[in-house]
Amino acid sequence: MNITPEIIGYIAATLTTSSFLPQAIMTIRTRDTESLSLGMYSAFTLGVLLWLVYGVYVSDKAIIFANAITFLLATSILVFKIYNTVVKKHG
Amino acid sequence: MNITPEIIGYIAATLTTSSFLPQAIMTIRTRDTESLSLGMYSAFTLGVLLWLVYGVYVSDKAIIFANAITFLLATSILVFKIYNTVVKKHG
Repeated sequence: MNITPEIIGYIAATLTTSSFLPQAIMTIRTRDTESLSLGMYSAFTLGVLLWLVYGVYVSDKAIIFANAITFLLATSILVFKIYNTVVKKHG
Repeated sequence: MNITPEIIGYIAATLTTSSFLPQAIMTIRTRDTESLSLGMYSAFTLGVLLWLVYGVYVSDKAIIFANAITFLLATSILVFKIYNTVVKKHG
């Protein structure tokens, strides 16, 4: 089997995305975003969005695949983080 | 100023890498890797390494830049995690 760059890209995408999954699922299930910094998580989510845009621009499927999934997860966590932050401020 | 895909890639790389930095620096400073799963962190580090290899293969500077820095940080954290795990087992 000939290991093409594309295959390496897909394996990399699967590894980094799947290593993000448990943390994301736990946060979504527990809604506990206390340990997350809103600033850092916003930067991360924006960064993942831009990787997605970049992947589309350069039509790189591995980048699109990894960042589309990560973006969905990161956005749901960010929504919980913003919700928790707003609720905490205004009770 | 014309926003080229390359610039989007560099901004994405800077955002995701910098959002990883505080967590990495804190773990390296405190050496506290209790909350990290060895399995997940190994998958993450291997994934980042493969993204780096992929970036070199497709000579994509944004991917190389982001993943070279992240790989250095992730590897140092993984070393602490393995050290703490081994020490905890054998006292």
